[in-house]
Amino acid sequence: MNLWEGPTPPAGGESAEALIPDKGVLIERIVSNGHVSPAGFWYDQERDEWVVLLQGQAEVAFADGRREKLASGDWLFIPAHERHRIESTSAEPPCLWLAVHGSLK
Amino acid sequence: MNLWEGPTPPAGGESAEALIPDKGVLIERIVSNGHVSPAGFWYDQERDEWVVLLQGQAEVAFADGRREKLASGDWLFIPAHERHRIESTSAEPPCLWLAVHGSLK
Repeated sequence: MNLWEGPTPPAGGESAEALIPDKGVLIERIVSNGHVSPAGFWYDQERDEWVVLLQGQAEVAFADGRREKLASGDWLFIPAHERHRIESTSAEPPCLWLAVHGSLK
Repeated sequence: MNLWEGPTPPAGGESAEALIPDKGVLIERIVSNGHVSPAGFWYDQERDEWVVLLQGQAEVAFADGRREKLASGDWLFIPAHERHRIESTSAEPPCLWLAVHGSLK
């Protein structure tokens, strides 16, 4: 199985797939094709997340006002309940993310 | 912090660094610069491992005789105590791995 292969969602869309069954630690491949979080939407996750951008460019905003611009290889640790949203993702190429969700800290 | 950046071990060597503190789930960046497991050595790990090769080419052997040739983007799930060894890793470019160790199944 290969991370670089797989379907790309339509323009503006996002797809996510678990790479192994989620038994408490979710490892997922995400493709964001110019996707942004809806206006006013914030992720508020039950689990910690470690996420790396493997292709494309993206910007993540946090509820405390921080913004992180990400390029290929940049990774973030987002503790559970740290509210965040996706401000932008590139479409050419689409953003490819690898995320690990679990009790990480 | 960026996965593509960081020191490369000397020829024949391997380096590994935890990207966040290991509190039960270890997320590590590994660089193998033409490294192979010593003759007769087998990994026999306490934890499950999910691992992806992000750069280079590698070959992993399993105690049951299976061999997996890996290219960039290929990933493997290795259950705890599944004995395996690294038969080869490329040096040009060095292999860059991202591994997640934990209770994954």
